[in-house]
Amino acid sequence: MDYAKQSLKLHYEWAGKLSVQPKMDVRSREALSLAYTPGVAAPCLEIARDAAKSYELTGRGNTVAVITDGTAVLGLGDIGPEAAMPVMEGKCVLFKAFGGIDAVPLCLRTRDVDEIVDTVALLAGSFGGINLEDISAPRCFEIERRLKARCDIPVFHDDQHGTAIVVAAALLGALDVTQRRVSAVRAVINGAGAAGIAIARMLLLLGAENVILCDRTGAVYAGRENLNAEKAAVASLTNPERVHGSLTDALRGADVFIGASAPGTLTPEMVRSMASGPVVFPMANPVPEIFPEEALAAGAAVVGTGRSDFPNQINNVLAFPGVFRGALDARASDINDEMKLAAARALYSLAQSAPDSLGRGYIIPEPFDARVVPAVAEAVARAAIASGVARAEPA
Amino acid sequence: MDYAKQSLKLHYEWAGKLSVQPKMDVRSREALSLAYTPGVAAPCLEIARDAAKSYELTGRGNTVAVITDGTAVLGLGDIGPEAAMPVMEGKCVLFKAFGGIDAVPLCLRTRDVDEIVDTVALLAGSFGGINLEDISAPRCFEIERRLKARCDIPVFHDDQHGTAIVVAAALLGALDVTQRRVSAVRAVINGAGAAGIAIARMLLLLGAENVILCDRTGAVYAGRENLNAEKAAVASLTNPERVHGSLTDALRGADVFIGASAPGTLTPEMVRSMASGPVVFPMANPVPEIFPEEALAAGAAVVGTGRSDFPNQINNVLAFPGVFRGALDARASDINDEMKLAAARALYSLAQSAPDSLGRGYIIPEPFDARVVPAVAEAVARAAIASGVARAEPA
Repeated sequence: MDYAKQSLKLHYEWAGKLSVQPKMDVRSREALSLAYTPGVAAPCLEIARDAAKSYELTGRGNTVAVITDGTAVLGLGDIGPEAAMPVMEGKCVLFKAFGGIDAVPLCLRTRDVDEIVDTVALLAGSFGGINLEDISAPRCFEIERRLKARCDIPVFHDDQHGTAIVVAAALLGALDVTQRRVSAVRAVINGAGAAGIAIARMLLLLGAENVILCDRTGAVYAGRENLNAEKAAVASLTNPERVHGSLTDALRGADVFIGASAPGTLTPEMVRSMASGPVVFPMANPVPEIFPEEALAAGAAVVGTGRSDFPNQINNVLAFPGVFRGALDARASDINDEMKLAAARALYSLAQSAPDSLGRGYIIPEPFDARVVPAVAEAVARAAIASGVARAEPA
Repeated sequence: MDYAKQSLKLHYEWAGKLSVQPKMDVRSREALSLAYTPGVAAPCLEIARDAAKSYELTGRGNTVAVITDGTAVLGLGDIGPEAAMPVMEGKCVLFKAFGGIDAVPLCLRTRDVDEIVDTVALLAGSFGGINLEDISAPRCFEIERRLKARCDIPVFHDDQHGTAIVVAAALLGALDVTQRRVSAVRAVINGAGAAGIAIARMLLLLGAENVILCDRTGAVYAGRENLNAEKAAVASLTNPERVHGSLTDALRGADVFIGASAPGTLTPEMVRSMASGPVVFPMANPVPEIFPEEALAAGAAVVGTGRSDFPNQINNVLAFPGVFRGALDARASDINDEMKLAAARALYSLAQSAPDSLGRGYIIPEPFDARVVPAVAEAVARAAIASGVARAEPA
């Protein structure tokens, strides 16, 4: 099917993929008096006395803002806020379809970090959480860090943490299948943007001790020239052997390749240079770093990609609906490392259990597996409570 | 009925009055590929080439932001953004129920004019229009003025212009019933906040030549002390006889009283001091400046209030859904004076025609009259085209 042509046609028919629907009828005086004036003064006063009541008396407790500046949209790059809207609407559709969450797309007409931070912070009283989306690196790191410090609701950059959670889950599955321990593996991540850096940090959280991040220049190591602040911070935590050189050099003898980079950057020769039966996640979309059949032919034991037409799809939709569902259910003030780890482990746990059994072709649940969102949400909510950021008991 | 108690109970049940609904199913790979990646890249690229396509390929052309800072909510005053949300959600419910418009409530955590202007301006690419709500005077004037200058979409402060449109329509009806010409009447407006000042300007647009605005100090006249910039600007356009003194002084011999003030500020004696058979609109809510039976007993020919339990309800819901419907249909860049006048005249025109006939008890259509929104929308869209701010032909 020509997805582009058909999708364009459908977007003209839809004229927007979301509809805002009232939960009640107001076309009578009585109904209007209850949903609006004069009755509405009562919930207003209740919230004025205790702002936390906004989670019970308004939609805030089930509403997330999906916010972008349009600078890193899909593989299209900096296309601006208006052009980013179809993706943000799509994301909001997924929030509702998978997580039952009301999501509002907001595309900002600025690329300025201060302006983005101010705008989002001023909106935080209207939402239960903020999902940042498609904001280019390295600005995305500073924006998220400052917003997390300033807001009393969770701020989550999905391109970083959603991806990192699902990669972590898939890696746990793949290491299980290939009988490796995470602390013993050498994992090479190619691509030091939002996803690559978040994946590196997540692997450290999982207990990995030998992670090497590579950018276009090659291996990132402490003290290397031309590192932005974010790469420098990761450099000090990774690459303990201080491997220098290209991706090819870094991969020699590695157990794991994780690609958040560009099509064709992994060759069969490079796979053959890795440890025996390596784990290979070429996630560039739609054209991966290496196609699964090539990687398998070169000796890969397990391959996962971002695509739905190959096994082991590493897809963010496995994470963000459940992560936010759990965070909202616990009325969490943050989505912290404990919650992200809990989400990854919940996905791994599902992959281990029926109906499918863990194997080379099944290291992570399918995106449409109905068990996923409830399991992730429950694990995330529990972790929120255990880590002290929950403000309510989930129902 | 105890509206407060019942409304509070319902608000707990609703847990938010709005739901965001996808227009399509995405729980299959094929559907996901069309509404989201990879298909969604096609509409993105189309908008990147021509930002105006955002009106056709996203929800923008039917979506309005309802924005407040929570400083002047109902009669409750400055209760803050979280506590303002039930009203904003209610407004969004009305937008959909009456105008078919998707509306998103956004309550800002700031009272700073610069911050509000910046925030709203940066959001304008996501919406087809901005409805400002419950922002206290005089900040509301500057905020609206600066946003109108900065945004390429309509910015409309409903407390000002929605009220002014409906008052103008009711006044045209009342002057018809009492056989007065607008240019010949002396109209006194009590209350020089957002509504009072906008009403004064609207009456001037209608052709009134003798409008007197009163604040707590009394009549506003050019050169009076203690006038803010907005009152000073109106003072230079109104009160041509430079009437000094209290509301009581200003009302002597006046044909019209319009109250956007406080309960009980109009006495029967004051009504008796007016011209014979005056028009009296005591719109303070829920307790009016004078009750209709008192005003009528004191000689008023026509009385209109803000309440649904008396005849001649002067209710904003008669204006904003149709005004925005027309502005969106014409993809207008502004809601200008011509469009506001067209809305008022359309309402007056409906009141003149069947099924009810214009009279002391029917000077303006009922809020639930199904003719209202289409008639106002059509008149507003026509006026947008005629005044050069339309960017599309309504379907």
